[in-house]
Formats: sequence, structure tokens, C-alpha cells
Amino acid sequence: MLNSTNRFIKELRKELTSENVLSELEERYAYAQDASNSINIAGIPDAVVFVRNTEDVISVVKKAKKYKIPIICRGAGTNTVGACRVEHGGIILNFSKMNKILEINKENMTAKVQPGVILGQFQDEVEKLGLFYPPDPSNLRVSTIGGSIAQSSAGAKTFKYGSTKNYILDLEIVTANGEILHTGSDTVKNATGYNLTSLFVGSEGTLGIITEATVKLIVKPESSKVIMAYFDTVDDAVNTVNMIIEQRITPATIDFMDFNAINTVEQFYPTGLLCDKEAALIIEIDGFKNTIDFQEKIINDILLRCKASAIQISHNEEEYNKIWMARRSSMGACAKIKPNVTTDDVIVPRNNLAKLVKGIQNICEKYNLTTCLVGHVGDGSVHPQIPIDYNDADEYSRFKLAKSEIYDLTISLNGTISGEHGIGADKREAISKVVNTSALNYMREIKKVFDPENILNPYKIF
Amino acid sequence: MLNSTNRFIKELRKELTSENVLSELEERYAYAQDASNSINIAGIPDAVVFVRNTEDVISVVKKAKKYKIPIICRGAGTNTVGACRVEHGGIILNFSKMNKILEINKENMTAKVQPGVILGQFQDEVEKLGLFYPPDPSNLRVSTIGGSIAQSSAGAKTFKYGSTKNYILDLEIVTANGEILHTGSDTVKNATGYNLTSLFVGSEGTLGIITEATVKLIVKPESSKVIMAYFDTVDDAVNTVNMIIEQRITPATIDFMDFNAINTVEQFYPTGLLCDKEAALIIEIDGFKNTIDFQEKIINDILLRCKASAIQISHNEEEYNKIWMARRSSMGACAKIKPNVTTDDVIVPRNNLAKLVKGIQNICEKYNLTTCLVGHVGDGSVHPQIPIDYNDADEYSRFKLAKSEIYDLTISLNGTISGEHGIGADKREAISKVVNTSALNYMREIKKVFDPENILNPYKIF
Repeated sequence: MLNSTNRFIKELRKELTSENVLSELEERYAYAQDASNSINIAGIPDAVVFVRNTEDVISVVKKAKKYKIPIICRGAGTNTVGACRVEHGGIILNFSKMNKILEINKENMTAKVQPGVILGQFQDEVEKLGLFYPPDPSNLRVSTIGGSIAQSSAGAKTFKYGSTKNYILDLEIVTANGEILHTGSDTVKNATGYNLTSLFVGSEGTLGIITEATVKLIVKPESSKVIMAYFDTVDDAVNTVNMIIEQRITPATIDFMDFNAINTVEQFYPTGLLCDKEAALIIEIDGFKNTIDFQEKIINDILLRCKASAIQISHNEEEYNKIWMARRSSMGACAKIKPNVTTDDVIVPRNNLAKLVKGIQNICEKYNLTTCLVGHVGDGSVHPQIPIDYNDADEYSRFKLAKSEIYDLTISLNGTISGEHGIGADKREAISKVVNTSALNYMREIKKVFDPENILNPYKIF
Repeated sequence: MLNSTNRFIKELRKELTSENVLSELEERYAYAQDASNSINIAGIPDAVVFVRNTEDVISVVKKAKKYKIPIICRGAGTNTVGACRVEHGGIILNFSKMNKILEINKENMTAKVQPGVILGQFQDEVEKLGLFYPPDPSNLRVSTIGGSIAQSSAGAKTFKYGSTKNYILDLEIVTANGEILHTGSDTVKNATGYNLTSLFVGSEGTLGIITEATVKLIVKPESSKVIMAYFDTVDDAVNTVNMIIEQRITPATIDFMDFNAINTVEQFYPTGLLCDKEAALIIEIDGFKNTIDFQEKIINDILLRCKASAIQISHNEEEYNKIWMARRSSMGACAKIKPNVTTDDVIVPRNNLAKLVKGIQNICEKYNLTTCLVGHVGDGSVHPQIPIDYNDADEYSRFKLAKSEIYDLTISLNGTISGEHGIGADKREAISKVVNTSALNYMREIKKVFDPENILNPYKIF
């Protein structure tokens, strides 16, 4: 370790106390990876620093600036694109101690949270008051709200309710020079200058450090029900999505699992999924109690017309949770097939969705890879989960070729390479395929405005 | 006119044809004002240039860059903050000829439009296909979609559906150096780098010129109904808003008119409004036909409990339009009281709404000014419309004092000075009251990144 790094860590330890600054090799090693589960440990952090409040963050940033040490923020580390990996030295800023819900204001329908709050726990607290925070990435039981803002996370309910960026009113940011910046206001609308809030949402910790967020809440739907419909062809499943919308129904979610996803989940977490089906839709309807039956009937009629070959409906919370558990277990199940599991996040306009799904299946077959496809098909979003063994060099090279072809296919279908996971380290080589040089140059200039010395999560996105 | 300006206009005329470049004094004078209706003609444009396509815009920008002539974009000129006024020379770029709906894609639920499309006409076309574009500023029958994006317009239905920024997927921008920039993609989600789209929404023509927009559509609600409820006190009206949300109803709109607004509208556009009431709420409910009665019943019960003293309900389209026409006529009606009419756009967290409304009424009374208050109270948004005579120097100075006190009151109630109209020229002195120095400096730096020579709508926002 460099001498300046040692001095930096010594100063941090003095100010934040030793228990908040981990620097033993094994401690640092534990934070070298995130859920991107990359083939190589690109680097290990120089230290892992637990911040307790905004003042701690300011203090760390000022010291990091002085010693030119990169800062990589980390919530729960569930990031799938290497956005919280440390590649060229630097410290992990761990937000697990800044995990307080500071306020839930029922009358204003807003809440203030620290970044380390677990998203699912926040939703639970909000719902106790009859309110609702819709963004629901699949890992919401472990992931943090700060991470979801930094990565512009979305989730199944984006279809009806929009994604994280639609719910953030104000961010307290510690800037690269250690100042506090407020990006918005406590009001639900704001048209006072440039929309800095939206600029920070999805900026992956490269422009500033989120230390507090004010979020908008909506009214919790009175009731909800989930319908799992199986199909013998992918086309029938995708066609169903269009038919539902034609009938002016907006389900909260229209999610998807393909044959491999159904079978892999059922193999490792059996809940009674029908393993002979090519595709399944997970359709959640919500709203007033007295509209649930009505929506269910319309959807049921559509499902029959669109040749659904089996339909399972949640009649109670247990059945509701069972269906969602199956959908959300796909990555965990994939992890049992091979030592490593990878996911991706491609998205196309919905009229190209069937082509994307079948194209990905064909590409993976061609390269002799297993892929479990899940996704938020209402949005045109597909997550190909590919279990592989990184120690198998041949398989890894086939995997890389397949990924590249999947991106090219997505782009040829007028789509893009990330709808909700971000770019991080893993996709920075690929971003120029979808963001043109002019836009990338403006992004780089914006980065320089906020972080001229490149200490905030450097080498990510570009 | 300067010689370089003459040369610039001559070149424009050659390239765009003479009919697209107006430079007679009376022609230019016609574009010296926008709906901000300011006391002084700050300046008149050097020319008014009608662009027909993106190539025209590129050509104009390149010439403007060469001669250092400011470009001020203009849709329908309905801007209320002087954002399309010409203060220090420059040309008006008029988008009325770039008014085509390029595509409405039913399956993808997206549309592509040129900036000069009239918002209300776009909504009509979209609704014919069973789709819906919710942003609905009150002037939607004349205002353009390009203007609504540039100003981050919202409207009554923001309460349920969110504002313009939630519906913009991609913008084609002509940058200050005459290049084309795409800010997003055709997909409904996008997490590939910084959110340039949201940065441009609400940037008031200062960062680049919008030449095309790709917007997200949603499913059109099957049915809607509007309830106009009258109250004897402002408190009762505001309390009703909270009670409705407590009962888990999310109306499409919860709009507001105060005593003066009701009376002024009824005086000039009589539709049978009840002129002895202190306040009225305009509550629109929408959704499946079979939920309208159910929502109406719940709201009716709440209205009775909250001491509504009269209730009018739309039973058909004519009655529906009559109520909305009354609400949307308030600015026109105010214009009949005095030679000039001004509006404003303050917003607070909803728990401070009653204080804001009564505070504004008191301030205007203190300064002997009439004010008609309307607003989107579901969002905490209030538009004080103050008719005055600019030639009455005393009245004008009282008006300025009142405005300043209204802003201070708003800020003391944790609100901000624009929710949906923007800053433009009129509020640039006041922006530092609500946006701190650090945030303003970052905004200025972002401006420099996109427009280093300050030719795009200069002297606006800051």
C-alpha cells in the first residue's frame, strides 16, 4: 500500500474510530466483488469505511480529495454490472450504518431516508400507513434504496408505476469537494432550473455521494392478485401482453419466465410450476377490491383466446408470495447449476420482444450455453441469466461471444443494453454501441463538472 | 441592426427562403412578448425564423454560432415567465411549421412528434387509438409539446399521472455547435449513462434545441367524471384532499378555485358557478366504468363529512367540459378586469397548502390587489392570478412587493417558486432564494458544457 494511502487510512481511523475503518486483507477481500460476480478480482479496496452520517461522508471525501484516493459507494453490493467494484485502488464507502427512515409524512405523501435503508423494509413501513413506494427490483429484500437510486433501478411494477427516477424529489449529495448539494425540493413538482435530481439518479456514484433522499409516495392499492399463465409458445405469451393492453387493462406487472427459467426454478425450489411449458407470464392486477374480479375476468378471457395452456391464480397472500418467490428465485436457482451465474439486462420496444427472446435462446443454443430468461415483458425488458463456470476457459469464451451477439441483436431490434441495471464496469466497453459519441462526450464533460479529479467511482460507465 | 446581424439574416433568407425569415419591424414586434405579459418590451428579435425540419435548425445554429447571434426557441408563446422573450438581441426560432405527429406506435405505446405539435391535438390523436398522454397544462389547446418539454410543464393530471418528464423517452437535440444529439432511446426504460433526457426537460431552451421527441403513452382510462365541490372555508377544502387520499382514492385531478376565481369566471363566462362559496375543488375520477360510481360514492361521503356545501357532478361530456372550461377560463376572465394579467406558480408540501392559500389572499388584500387563486392542490400547487394595470405605477409597485412576499411565504412553508412554469427571465432574480449557490453553480457549469458561447436562450434561468 502506498504511503499516502496509509496516512489516509490512519486519519480516517482517528476520525471515524477504528471499528468503522476495516483494513485487514481478509476484510478488504470480502468487498472486492459485487453481485456482478466477475471472472477476475479486478482489485481489492484499500479500506472499507462505514459512515454513520453526512458529516462522516464529508470528512471522508475531503481526505480522499487530499490524498487522491477513489471512493466507491456500496449499499448491499447487489449490483450486477460491477458498479461497486474497486479496480484501481480506493476505498469502499459502506452505507449499512446510514440505514434510518428519517420521516414518512402521510399528509404530504413523501418520505426521507438514508441511503442504507433496505428497500423492502422501507416498502413495508410505508405500506403500514396505507402508502406505497412502487420501485421493486427483484433483490428488494436485501438491496438498499441508495443503491437503487444510484443505479436507476426499476423492477416488475415499472410497467404500471414507472421506475425509481419518477419517485425521487430531492437528494442530499456530498460533492467531490466535500460540500452539501440539494438537487430538488420537498415539493412533488419543481421547475426551478436544471433537473439535477434526475441527473444523479442512475449516475452510479460517479457524480456525487447520496446521503439522503426525499421520495414521493402514492396511495397503496387496496387489493392485488397475481395470475400465472403458461403458454406453449413464446409468441403466444408476447401476443397476450398486447391483447391485455388493447383491452385497456394496465396490470401492475407483466413478467415473464421461459422454459429454462421455469424448469430451473422448479428443480431447486419446487412450488408446482408446470415444467412442460415454453413460457409463463406473471400478471399482477391491483386496485380497488371490486375491480379485481372484473380485471381478472377480462384477462382470463384474453388468456384463453391467446391459447394459454394453464392458468394459476393467487387466492390468498401465501399463493401470491409463492408465485413471486418462484419468479424471483431464478437467479438463485441458476447459481445451483454452475459455479458462477451471470445476468444481463437488455430491452427493446415491445413489438420486437418475441424476436429478442427467441434470438437470445438461439444464440445461447448455438454457443452451447444454458440461459434462463426472465424479464419485465410489459416494458420489453429481458434478463438472460447464464450459469457458467469461469474456470472453463472454453465456456467463458463462448459466453463472451454470446453476450456480444445478444447486444448486437438487441441493438438491431432498436433496443438498448441496459434498462435498469446500469453500465458499471462490465458494460463500459459496450456503451458506445448504444450511446453515440456526442452524447458520451457530453456525459464525460458533466462528469468533469462534478468530479474534476475523478475520485468518485472512477472508470465506471465510460 | 449590426452589420453581422444583417449578413446573418441575408444568409438565412437565402437558405430557408424569404417567407421563413421575417425581419420587418412590425413582424418582429409581434414576437417581442410571450404570455408572461411583462411590463416592458425588453427587446425585439432581430428576425423571426420559421424552421421546417431538423436540417433547417442545424443550418440556423451553425450560422448563429458563426455570427454569435442568440437563438430563442418559441412554440406557441404561451410561456408565462418570459422564457421566450428576446432581451439582448437574437432571433426567434419559430416551430409552428415543425408540427407533425411522426408516429403513434400502438403496440409499443410510444409516439414520435415534432416540437410544434399542439399538445391538445396530439392528445386527441392518441386517444383515438385508446392511448393516453396525460400532461395537460391549462393552455393545451394552443401550447406546443416542444414548449411543454422545454418548460417541464405539468397540469392538473400530474396528481395521478406525473408530469411531462415522466413521459419523455428520447429527444433529438440540435446542440449549440450544430450537431445532432440523442438523449435516450425508444425503450421505456434506459440505464445507459447519465439521464440527459431529464436534463433537457425543463432546461428552457438553454442547453440545446429540441427537434423531435419520443414520448411514452399509457392506456386511456375507460371512463371519467368530474365532481365540483364547494366549501365555505379554504380549510375545509384542503382537509377534503387529505381525506380522499386517506380513503385510498387517487383522483386524476384535485384542482382548486378560490372565491375570487369562482366569481371572476362566473362574471365573464357564466356557467352557473356558485358565487357565494369560499372555495371549490374540481375532482376528476377516472378508470374502469364500473369503478366510477364506487369512487364517486366514497368521495361524496367524504365531501359531506368535510362540510362541502354544494356538489355538482358531470353526467355527460357537455357537463364535464363545462366544469373544466370554467376552471381553465380563470386567466382569461382575469384579463377582463384590468389591462394586464399575471400568473404565478408557487408550490408547497400539501400539509402547508391552507396556510399558503390564506397567506396569499392576505398579502394581496394588504397590498390592495385582486387575486384569483387556482391550482392543482393535490400537488400543493397554487397559481395566484393577479390582474393589474402596468400603467398604474403605484399598483405596479404594490404588485412587486406582494410577489416578493408571496415567494418568501412559500419558502417559509418549505415550498418552491416554480412547480411547472419554469424560471425564464421573470424569476431569475428569485431563483437563488430556492436553489442554493452550489446547485446554481453546477447548473451554470452544465450550461457551459452544452453552450459554451451562450447563444441558446441566454440570460434565462440564471
